[in-house]
Amino acid sequence: MSHKIILDTDPGIDDAMAIFFAFQSPEIEVLGLTTVFGNVPVEMAAQNALTLCELAGKDIPVCKGVSRAWVGKESTYAHFVHGDDGFGNINFPPATKAKLDPRSSAQFIVDMARQYPGEVTIVAIGPLGNLALALRLEPELPKLIKGVSIMGGAAFVQGNVTPVAEANIWNDAYAAEIVFAADWEVTMFGLDVTLQVPFSLEFLNKLKACNQKFGGFVHDAAQFYVEFYSEHRADKVCFFHDTMPLAHLVDPTLFEFQVGHARVSTDPLNIGQTSIAPVNSTTSADWLNARQIKVATQVDIQRITQLYLDTYARA
Amino acid sequence: MSHKIILDTDPGIDDAMAIFFAFQSPEIEVLGLTTVFGNVPVEMAAQNALTLCELAGKDIPVCKGVSRAWVGKESTYAHFVHGDDGFGNINFPPATKAKLDPRSSAQFIVDMARQYPGEVTIVAIGPLGNLALALRLEPELPKLIKGVSIMGGAAFVQGNVTPVAEANIWNDAYAAEIVFAADWEVTMFGLDVTLQVPFSLEFLNKLKACNQKFGGFVHDAAQFYVEFYSEHRADKVCFFHDTMPLAHLVDPTLFEFQVGHARVSTDPLNIGQTSIAPVNSTTSADWLNARQIKVATQVDIQRITQLYLDTYARA
Repeated sequence: MSHKIILDTDPGIDDAMAIFFAFQSPEIEVLGLTTVFGNVPVEMAAQNALTLCELAGKDIPVCKGVSRAWVGKESTYAHFVHGDDGFGNINFPPATKAKLDPRSSAQFIVDMARQYPGEVTIVAIGPLGNLALALRLEPELPKLIKGVSIMGGAAFVQGNVTPVAEANIWNDAYAAEIVFAADWEVTMFGLDVTLQVPFSLEFLNKLKACNQKFGGFVHDAAQFYVEFYSEHRADKVCFFHDTMPLAHLVDPTLFEFQVGHARVSTDPLNIGQTSIAPVNSTTSADWLNARQIKVATQVDIQRITQLYLDTYARA
Repeated sequence: MSHKIILDTDPGIDDAMAIFFAFQSPEIEVLGLTTVFGNVPVEMAAQNALTLCELAGKDIPVCKGVSRAWVGKESTYAHFVHGDDGFGNINFPPATKAKLDPRSSAQFIVDMARQYPGEVTIVAIGPLGNLALALRLEPELPKLIKGVSIMGGAAFVQGNVTPVAEANIWNDAYAAEIVFAADWEVTMFGLDVTLQVPFSLEFLNKLKACNQKFGGFVHDAAQFYVEFYSEHRADKVCFFHDTMPLAHLVDPTLFEFQVGHARVSTDPLNIGQTSIAPVNSTTSADWLNARQIKVATQVDIQRITQLYLDTYARA
């Protein structure tokens, strides 16, 4: 069975890893890439998405999305994580032929949902502004969408931007609260699982060996990314957060989940915190009235690592 | 000279008065009506806009817009002001032939701005969610728009929903802050001027006498509206807030203005307050860094009343 997905992305090194993984997976049909500010400004995210599609020979729609958060000032970007170019400063030649779809990311999401009612999974691996915008453009969107899989948040572990907030959610907390509160099936892959699986330099070498084009790109771009993570660790590793919701589509048995009522904090101090109340764990109406989502809490480290290599190794 | 406008509206009794005024004014070319939740739910606002267009024989685009505020729970509506039908419970037959444009209100605003760069004035007489959404869909929108005229806010007078907040801004305060902060020319017609001009039953009779179709509609619908205002006053009057920015397009000399830095409060207690710092009146960075807008502070009561009658009296 094939999953029709829209991949909402802010490439980004782990975004590139995720996009190639999706392209390489026969179980996944990518209807289009919708881009958003986040790791990099949205103009760069859109250009980088085009570059990855051109490299892959994939002629699919690439749309530009929102350039700033739902509420508040213009964002800062994570160039210290992803490099000035979003690709670890590897000076990869940008796309020259591929052109942006004229539609906004949000409009593209609405259009695909109407075209394939009940069939489309939105895989959102950046801040959630495009999804919030699409919900405002078409309030019936949740009925038309099969599900929403998110890389973002930190349910039962600490954050990475602040002690309580993960970067994607922190970047657009109001949008995240709108997305979490909408009447659709949300599955969250947060730092709870993404930080369980460090990827070593040896893994990157293997990825390049099994696929020069895609694996080589990720290997080269990720050297900068490893340096960023190494500042805070003894070993030389990096984390491919964004690939996890896609791995789940290919093999749902890789993960364990907990169901809980989800809220996103918008108070200044805790902004971007994803607070999950497991079912029957609270009597607070603030959470009891909140939608339930599925939160990934465990991942099979060996098997997901092997899945990445096997998928990249496909011809 | 003719003004190309998009009229963003939530009909609503004074919206009907304003829409007919626009249709009757040779100085105004209405490119389309974009509707928004506010006085009534957005589905009713869209239907009511169609009804007014069909009554007027105006075949222009009517779009449905946002159904709820930028942030927060679904809104309450002002049926106690405008009646269950938004038209003072007059049981006016709804449009049967006119059909909604398939575009969202926000997309229509973007499309018209691109089609007529620098020529379009947005006249927004409801909550400002469609304008905020359009700004997110097209960040370059301010460069493409001639100006934004708003009925909303209370600069130097008390509010009408809370002691500090006027209804349109209170209904979608976050959206209003986005619209006020964008890099375009905003002119605000708030309670400062709209409450200067009460309209008596005698005026409503004159309006009907000079135009049975449009004046008759407004006269009939406004009876309920007068009852609402009479609860709080000794005389029997009502207020046609929404017509003021349109009257200004026809005759700019009707108003006096003050220029000031504008902020919209989103704190719970003061939510929807429009706080205007006249130029050189403050050293607070919160206001000094805010965009300057033009705020109408005085209106010529006799001349604007006569303008309404003269305009409705046109064949």
